[in-house]
Amino acid sequence: MKRYEELANTIATEIAAGRIKAGTRLPSVRTLTTQYGIGQTTVFRAYYLLEERGLIQVRERSGYYVAQGVVANVQQNPARDESPAPALVSVSDVIFSVLDAVRHPGIVPLGSAFPSPMLFPLYRLSRAMSQAGRTLGPWNSVLDMPPGNEHLRRQIALRYTTMGAPQTLDEILITNGALEALNLCLLAVTKPGDIVAIESPCFYAALQAVERFGLRAVEIPVDPVTGLDLGVLESALRAHPVRAVWAMTNFQNPTGASLSREKKRALVALLAKYQCPLIEDDVYGELYFGPERPPPAKAFDTEGLVMHCTSLSKVLAPGYRLGWVAAGRFADAVRRQKLMTSISTSGPIQAGLAEYLQHGGFEKHLRKLRTTLNHQMETMEEAIQAALPRSIRYHRPAGGYFLWLRLPAEVDAMQLHASALTHGINVTPGTIFSRGNLYGNYIRLNCGHPWTPKMADAIKTLGELLDTLLSRDDHAALPSPSQPLLPVDDATRPNIS
Amino acid sequence: MKRYEELANTIATEIAAGRIKAGTRLPSVRTLTTQYGIGQTTVFRAYYLLEERGLIQVRERSGYYVAQGVVANVQQNPARDESPAPALVSVSDVIFSVLDAVRHPGIVPLGSAFPSPMLFPLYRLSRAMSQAGRTLGPWNSVLDMPPGNEHLRRQIALRYTTMGAPQTLDEILITNGALEALNLCLLAVTKPGDIVAIESPCFYAALQAVERFGLRAVEIPVDPVTGLDLGVLESALRAHPVRAVWAMTNFQNPTGASLSREKKRALVALLAKYQCPLIEDDVYGELYFGPERPPPAKAFDTEGLVMHCTSLSKVLAPGYRLGWVAAGRFADAVRRQKLMTSISTSGPIQAGLAEYLQHGGFEKHLRKLRTTLNHQMETMEEAIQAALPRSIRYHRPAGGYFLWLRLPAEVDAMQLHASALTHGINVTPGTIFSRGNLYGNYIRLNCGHPWTPKMADAIKTLGELLDTLLSRDDHAALPSPSQPLLPVDDATRPNIS
Repeated sequence: MKRYEELANTIATEIAAGRIKAGTRLPSVRTLTTQYGIGQTTVFRAYYLLEERGLIQVRERSGYYVAQGVVANVQQNPARDESPAPALVSVSDVIFSVLDAVRHPGIVPLGSAFPSPMLFPLYRLSRAMSQAGRTLGPWNSVLDMPPGNEHLRRQIALRYTTMGAPQTLDEILITNGALEALNLCLLAVTKPGDIVAIESPCFYAALQAVERFGLRAVEIPVDPVTGLDLGVLESALRAHPVRAVWAMTNFQNPTGASLSREKKRALVALLAKYQCPLIEDDVYGELYFGPERPPPAKAFDTEGLVMHCTSLSKVLAPGYRLGWVAAGRFADAVRRQKLMTSISTSGPIQAGLAEYLQHGGFEKHLRKLRTTLNHQMETMEEAIQAALPRSIRYHRPAGGYFLWLRLPAEVDAMQLHASALTHGINVTPGTIFSRGNLYGNYIRLNCGHPWTPKMADAIKTLGELLDTLLSRDDHAALPSPSQPLLPVDDATRPNIS
Repeated sequence: MKRYEELANTIATEIAAGRIKAGTRLPSVRTLTTQYGIGQTTVFRAYYLLEERGLIQVRERSGYYVAQGVVANVQQNPARDESPAPALVSVSDVIFSVLDAVRHPGIVPLGSAFPSPMLFPLYRLSRAMSQAGRTLGPWNSVLDMPPGNEHLRRQIALRYTTMGAPQTLDEILITNGALEALNLCLLAVTKPGDIVAIESPCFYAALQAVERFGLRAVEIPVDPVTGLDLGVLESALRAHPVRAVWAMTNFQNPTGASLSREKKRALVALLAKYQCPLIEDDVYGELYFGPERPPPAKAFDTEGLVMHCTSLSKVLAPGYRLGWVAAGRFADAVRRQKLMTSISTSGPIQAGLAEYLQHGGFEKHLRKLRTTLNHQMETMEEAIQAALPRSIRYHRPAGGYFLWLRLPAEVDAMQLHASALTHGINVTPGTIFSRGNLYGNYIRLNCGHPWTPKMADAIKTLGELLDTLLSRDDHAALPSPSQPLLPVDDATRPNIS
């Protein structure tokens, strides 16, 4: 470890332990130079590194200060007589801590929800934007209003036809990414006080939406191999007036689970029986490693009860914020929610991405992206098997870029998250994927970034941090890759709450 | 009137009267040719006109059908023994009817909420987009996340400094237009069941937000000259735990009213006394006709209680969907709402508009736009005075592009809206700006479109429609322009509900 890194880690530990509070001014470069007997450059580089990690902030003509938020109030390895660490940060704070850390390029993004932006055809995209921009007329701002740009909706409709789930143009509504689509669907079919069914573990945005809109949630367990438990879902539908089910059918976040074709068909039939809408989140569906795209549940929907939400954010154009929903019988209700929420989706973005979808070489890009992600996941697995305790369990998903790791029961993933962050590593603690601290010994790792020595180091550091949280006896090599890793067991099957 | 226009109006009247129902197939061109003894071209042109107005829709290889929605179930001039018209369409439906009509370029857009897209520098904007697009790096998708692109926030911060209300970069959050900003602010400071204060009449989106998020509203009267009634507001603050006030301080929609500097200062002081946040909607503030920009209430805010929301949609780039909020002490709470609602605002749009704001000539464009809108409003006033009954009252606002007309008490603006739509004219009935049918004899006219003969005809048609709704005696010339028009009287001061 370089000298400036050592200094940065020393300061990071002080901050993490709460011994330097948020908002405190750090010693001047001159002071540290004298105090540690080191060069000014070393101090500058240490401060720069801490700034990159989001731990400190510069204020012009004033100096460096400890940043608000990120790790404030988290104690690293608290002594036994101090108050215990887990409860000090709320789940909600950790969600934003994970999201905020994404903004700092200095942090190893194992906790990010996005693949690396290096994997996308930025030049072709920007060229498509310019080409479409030149043909935008004054009335586009009106014509691109919900349901959205017709050229774009035609391109999207073509994709549905190809995957065997044809949609009419009228049923496709363009949104600001999939998250807006999901939220609009929820608002379209519920009112405050209603009950909805969500997954456990689930994409944390579902938990946030339930809370913000004053809904009540029934949590349906997700098996990391076979996905949503339809038996439990049916009990819930029988017992409660469930207004909607929000679920991810392919490469679920965080588990990576997918429903089989048969199970999707059964899910749609079950919901039709209860006339309950499905809000289907399928943002990872295009990122399959097998021979063909797994169909969405929407492909089996004959009654227009499924609202199929997806986007280009994880497969083509991160940051462009373009998504859509094929909303079936709810198309008009969702369109009205869109008008009330953000009026419209940006016209130049709609036109630019329509142009790309038609002429940009999307299929070729997707083929390359799938191969890359599959390879990156393999590399990550090798690193995990070399550096993490053998007691760790996970199931390799058939697509996407997440690994959902079960750590030994005595590990607190929130503590691991906080400690890792002080080392410039972002991992997502399982806790944020449910309401009841259910996955306290799980972490989600992102394999969406090209492998680098820094990432290899990060996995090693994670291994060391886990060692300090575990008894030494437990640490040994993982079973060799030829031996199949066990799927996660019943610990992932919480009761409905 | 041309022959095809006559035919179109005949059919439109049949549709409006409910004698041809939504979804009905219209007679074939051949049938009408025989029936009326007219040429095929005349029939085709009539159908094309009706399609433009959104009254009918073509289905491929099948023919023309009466469209769903727009005017279904509205009866024009019902006979006295039929059920009365007003209750047949809900306010909520009329809001969407007004919005939908905007999408049809054939409809005279007097009811639109947007100025003409012809008034904006589309070429310069698209050039700025291309220029910024070329410099977008892979990490922009991460760096542009909330609070948003730093270059853009710097440009916006400069504007605040210029108007005497300096804001730090951290307090500025980029959003998908002002509407998203307003909704996020509301979500940041309320939970379902809370009470908020809104204006009466108010921008209808406030009513929609209150309903969707399960809030309760106290309506504070707005005087078309002096704006929000602070006396009534103070009573409300004393009587209820009001969690936020949502108000428009400059060129209010729909009245055009502005608060004076003194009144803005008093409003901010009043809210500080009750520690109640102000969600300030200032989307028309830049469109002043006087010598200088009226300040926002935010300029008098020393406690960070004001969340100042605005956008570029009405002043520069319609359809780009770029807005922001300077959220004071709520900056972090609003940023979290943004992450949960739509994650981020489109990166290429943020970068492109930052480029335009810095180099595109925004001030020059604004000067020209203000002159144009002022002139268009004058022209509209002349047309109104020549063609509408003299009993109509309004107050000319000092900026923006809306005229808020009080019609004689016996006129039902919902009926006028429906009748006008069958003539291809969209006007906004006052009813949609409150919860309790309070402005049933008001309409809002949009002066944001360049004057055309079609618009002149539309005003004349409105005059004729009003004539049919009024006794003949009432119809005479308006007072000459030299004589000041009266401000709207106490009828605009409803009680709190």
